[in-house]
Amino acid sequence: MTNSQKQNQMANAIRFLSIDAVEKANSGHPGLPMGAADIATVLYTQFLAHDPKNPAWPNRDRFVLSAGHGSMLLYSLLYLTGYEDITLDQIKDFRQLGARTAGHPEYGHAAGIETTTGPLGQGITNAVGMALGERLMAARFGDDLINHYTYTLVGDGCLMEGISQEAVALAGHLKLNKLIVLWDDNNISIDGKISLADNTSQRARFAASGWHTIKVDGHDQAAIAKALEEARASDRPTLIACKTTIGFGSPHKAGTSKVHGAPLGADEVKATREALGWDAPPFVVPAEILDNWRLAGLNAARKRLEWDRKYAALEPAQKVEFDRLMRGDLPGTFEAAIEAYKKKLVDEQPKVATRKASEMALEVINAVVPETVGGSADLTGSNNKKTSQTASITPDDFTGRYMHYGIREHAMGAVMNGLALYGGIIPYSGTFLCFSDYARPAIRLSSLMGIRVIYVMTHDSIGLGEDGPTHQPVEHLASLRAIPNHLVFRPADVVETAECWQLALKSAKAPSTLALTRQSLPTLRKEHKADNLCALGAYELETASDAAQVAIFASGSEVEIAVAACALLEEKGIATRVVSVPCFELFERQPASYRKALIGAAPVNIAVEAAIRQGWDRFIGTDGIFIGMTGFGASGPIEELYPHFGITAEAVVEAAQKRLDEKAAEQGAA
Amino acid sequence: MTNSQKQNQMANAIRFLSIDAVEKANSGHPGLPMGAADIATVLYTQFLAHDPKNPAWPNRDRFVLSAGHGSMLLYSLLYLTGYEDITLDQIKDFRQLGARTAGHPEYGHAAGIETTTGPLGQGITNAVGMALGERLMAARFGDDLINHYTYTLVGDGCLMEGISQEAVALAGHLKLNKLIVLWDDNNISIDGKISLADNTSQRARFAASGWHTIKVDGHDQAAIAKALEEARASDRPTLIACKTTIGFGSPHKAGTSKVHGAPLGADEVKATREALGWDAPPFVVPAEILDNWRLAGLNAARKRLEWDRKYAALEPAQKVEFDRLMRGDLPGTFEAAIEAYKKKLVDEQPKVATRKASEMALEVINAVVPETVGGSADLTGSNNKKTSQTASITPDDFTGRYMHYGIREHAMGAVMNGLALYGGIIPYSGTFLCFSDYARPAIRLSSLMGIRVIYVMTHDSIGLGEDGPTHQPVEHLASLRAIPNHLVFRPADVVETAECWQLALKSAKAPSTLALTRQSLPTLRKEHKADNLCALGAYELETASDAAQVAIFASGSEVEIAVAACALLEEKGIATRVVSVPCFELFERQPASYRKALIGAAPVNIAVEAAIRQGWDRFIGTDGIFIGMTGFGASGPIEELYPHFGITAEAVVEAAQKRLDEKAAEQGAA
Repeated sequence: MTNSQKQNQMANAIRFLSIDAVEKANSGHPGLPMGAADIATVLYTQFLAHDPKNPAWPNRDRFVLSAGHGSMLLYSLLYLTGYEDITLDQIKDFRQLGARTAGHPEYGHAAGIETTTGPLGQGITNAVGMALGERLMAARFGDDLINHYTYTLVGDGCLMEGISQEAVALAGHLKLNKLIVLWDDNNISIDGKISLADNTSQRARFAASGWHTIKVDGHDQAAIAKALEEARASDRPTLIACKTTIGFGSPHKAGTSKVHGAPLGADEVKATREALGWDAPPFVVPAEILDNWRLAGLNAARKRLEWDRKYAALEPAQKVEFDRLMRGDLPGTFEAAIEAYKKKLVDEQPKVATRKASEMALEVINAVVPETVGGSADLTGSNNKKTSQTASITPDDFTGRYMHYGIREHAMGAVMNGLALYGGIIPYSGTFLCFSDYARPAIRLSSLMGIRVIYVMTHDSIGLGEDGPTHQPVEHLASLRAIPNHLVFRPADVVETAECWQLALKSAKAPSTLALTRQSLPTLRKEHKADNLCALGAYELETASDAAQVAIFASGSEVEIAVAACALLEEKGIATRVVSVPCFELFERQPASYRKALIGAAPVNIAVEAAIRQGWDRFIGTDGIFIGMTGFGASGPIEELYPHFGITAEAVVEAAQKRLDEKAAEQGAA
Repeated sequence: MTNSQKQNQMANAIRFLSIDAVEKANSGHPGLPMGAADIATVLYTQFLAHDPKNPAWPNRDRFVLSAGHGSMLLYSLLYLTGYEDITLDQIKDFRQLGARTAGHPEYGHAAGIETTTGPLGQGITNAVGMALGERLMAARFGDDLINHYTYTLVGDGCLMEGISQEAVALAGHLKLNKLIVLWDDNNISIDGKISLADNTSQRARFAASGWHTIKVDGHDQAAIAKALEEARASDRPTLIACKTTIGFGSPHKAGTSKVHGAPLGADEVKATREALGWDAPPFVVPAEILDNWRLAGLNAARKRLEWDRKYAALEPAQKVEFDRLMRGDLPGTFEAAIEAYKKKLVDEQPKVATRKASEMALEVINAVVPETVGGSADLTGSNNKKTSQTASITPDDFTGRYMHYGIREHAMGAVMNGLALYGGIIPYSGTFLCFSDYARPAIRLSSLMGIRVIYVMTHDSIGLGEDGPTHQPVEHLASLRAIPNHLVFRPADVVETAECWQLALKSAKAPSTLALTRQSLPTLRKEHKADNLCALGAYELETASDAAQVAIFASGSEVEIAVAACALLEEKGIATRVVSVPCFELFERQPASYRKALIGAAPVNIAVEAAIRQGWDRFIGTDGIFIGMTGFGASGPIEELYPHFGITAEAVVEAAQKRLDEKAAEQGAA
């Protein structure tokens, strides 16, 4: 190693802020910040284009700490380079309730935290999304305006997770050459040596997907700088394998799993101070060292000034559009386009599957909302998400608006998170609802971060038919509705599908999932309403002829069944109403008075959904009747499956009649 | 190609059974069976050791059709080689309700279907589990008794899924040299050419994890046989990249995505018959060709006769033990050991985290149940699942009972599925509850197949503290409880933990998840009960002093809070009872009378769980009070988090009091 004293001291500043913060919190992960301090020092002092005083500068380089447990590395960097959000007090408050300095980096807690990390493998895949975002925005506004690097620091955990392979393959395919992965190659995981569970050559694996790879001593700052230069010049994405010692500097714990996720302890902190020649007391960075860091922050911001001139030179219309995109505002023409489209639908009353209805809506949306970028996990023809406006994105052409994500649902979700975080883009994409399970960790992070990512999940019930129980969701609606801050839409017809798309696009602070059918459904909306009825979450679709004896609540394809049952019951003289429930979450946001009135007071309440009951008690009460699934589905034609599982209008009528008879008998007895 | 006429005809028998079945069903995937027919013919006529008349023969080679959409390939093979379950009528009933020949292969539908496939990437990972099972059982009973190959046929979809990387890395690490992956390398996925989304060199990727790789013309049966010989001789697992044409033989659709997932259509079926010289009418396999296939089935069974002699020569005690393991029966000493352990716990009243309680229970279990094989996704010290009996499994020593799965939750689940399907082994393993999301597709398949896989998920709430919302499950209990045929246990103390383990081990037809705390909990069971109270799913833990005014339902760590609240309410003269709810699913299996009595009729019902409400209405009704989470958690010390989110005994008391006052006021007004 040939690091200068200054270089070592700057890295040690990270090490001791991290050590001291973990020690004070008596909780946290000192090993990574200590091991990766040299890498981070080189990156933040010599390469990263960012501006601590203008952290949202659109053309900044992105840095993602994929190994999120090493959060103190990032907090140290943000403090040292001068981000206002991360003060020394925040660092002293590491892992305390209400602090910006949470156990893992949380998007939104502080500027400079580009994404929430901690669940392993997500960050590297978000970084792929950001690097893709950079190419997409450059294709739209020119390489002069948008042209920067995306860096991510990953650990062995990130690389063992399967999602990393999906990310690596996608980035290699797209030749995202401004994506640089810094691998903290320390040979240690929580259980001990990596060789306990893995002997993969990561360099060979990345190379297999078309990456450039470099190996470097992760404590030799000059070598790291040289590797970064080489990576930046590459025509392919680059993996830099940085051989490091976890807990570098700790005399008795460095190089072992003991330093991964626990405080060093007072004695070892003292010994580490001695070993690294760091005399400063806890949380004190000597002035000269801090000055050097702050200077690095100022230097890094110079590129922002250059960029401001380019931005100022944009055509006025381009500037307006760029600003709109970066704010995340929808175009002014959006609402009118949806309104006109809804009118047309009510006039024409088409009978189509909601997956097709979604394609029709997207045809309207994509024409007026240029920032949508669609895609599918290799189910383009089945998911119906490619419209006339969305040419495929290819390694040679990023002007397109459609991603072929491959059979990689998990990466698709995490790349969409990266795109949404990048800004200027509204990503939507999907797969079969059943395979939302594959993307679930990414969907959870969309929700936790509160970002506009739209998951379009087709084939949403046993209605998909012959593919059978492996492909038929039964628990997925309930399990997706369980995720906080996540709008799950299940539209009942072509009009509701348009309304749900409208709501999903307008939901800037929560992701959405649209659950859509494979099978055709009639248009149920008979009169045009300017209001978006789905915005209520649930609304009365059919009014009872008299005080309702029966109320039927249903979503999606089962609303048709509810309406048919309602007609049959009304024929029998039983006053019945139907409530369509496209979105549980939005219903919960309505005033209590609306909710109470909508649920009503019919003596018999029935819910119909071709899925499990969980969650429906909210509408029908624990003594309500549920017509749906109690277990897994089966392979067979749809015409046989619905009767087989007893999900029919006749079954609803029978159950209602029986319950009414029971109630009458009870009252007679009373 | 140098295939003989006979070889071609045998392969064509598969092709036309598949074509005709898909045509009749008007639904299905002809492309794979047509493309992979030569590979399958070579495997089933020259290599696979199996016995169609004794399909459960323990030392059979395993074949997993990982690309499950090609189900007609497997059904054709089973019919042609003489499996009784798959008759010609079954093939004619392909994809019809009630048929064994479901859209995707369903475990349990027919002998010869080793696992349920369809969700991509699962089968290859199950196969890794089976190949591991073979090594584990060989280490226990000798290579003389257990010594066979595991083959799996995978498509591009399986290899794009991230789980494949986890599987490949694990198999390479463990040097599972009797695992042979046949890749149907046809360059086509649903969206079109593979190059739309991928340019990975699969051979290079597998080689990076220590695999032997071979490339072969997938329509040249002699070359395939040569490759299989080479693979079987390898000291590493082998990937055979078989270059094939999807829909081989179809003049206008072969080599395109059109033939992947739709019937050929009558004209193209006719053209294909002409192109391949197949004159037989639909569903007719000419007698000579069928005879050749049936002969292959008989020949393949010869090894079973050899094996019978080895089995007959086992020591009587070994034979008894082998049979017990293969039947999946627990040892006779199991119940008494648990009983004695529970007594000891009630005497000693330890205060430990349930993750520690789980370790203590496992120490007892692993001593008497030799078939358990534990593991963790790199959280051995945190999950507490390694006991004194479970040495690590290494590439050189399979006598161990503990797997270091690496940071690969998804593969861990699918490998455990493979181990459970293999037989003779009860796999348990886990990660943090929050990361159950990563394994969810595998957990779903454990449930759909109904197999004994035990997921042990620790750090089960905000109680984990500082790691923050990325690590704190809030929706996971609800979302796991939503999966049909899946027992989710959340024990409240050390005794319940022992009981839940007992139930999980006895649940031979459903997987279990144990959700366990990081934080310590007191022993709540004060008197020893020989009965397993958790078997009821929910039971009264504290009886009210009088007719209950308040009933509190809780699970896991919140039962302590419920008990404390109960004491406070009783002090105030408010009769209160507490119900512990360790398992929703088992509660639902109780007689209606028990369920009704247990829920009771207290005017105020409260549920306490540090998670979302979804599902709890079952116990407390829609007007019940829920004390728990409404959104994501936060980073901070546990002592601050519970009060911050209002999950305390005091909050329960206050809510109860308030509701009682409201009710009194209502009654006063009435």
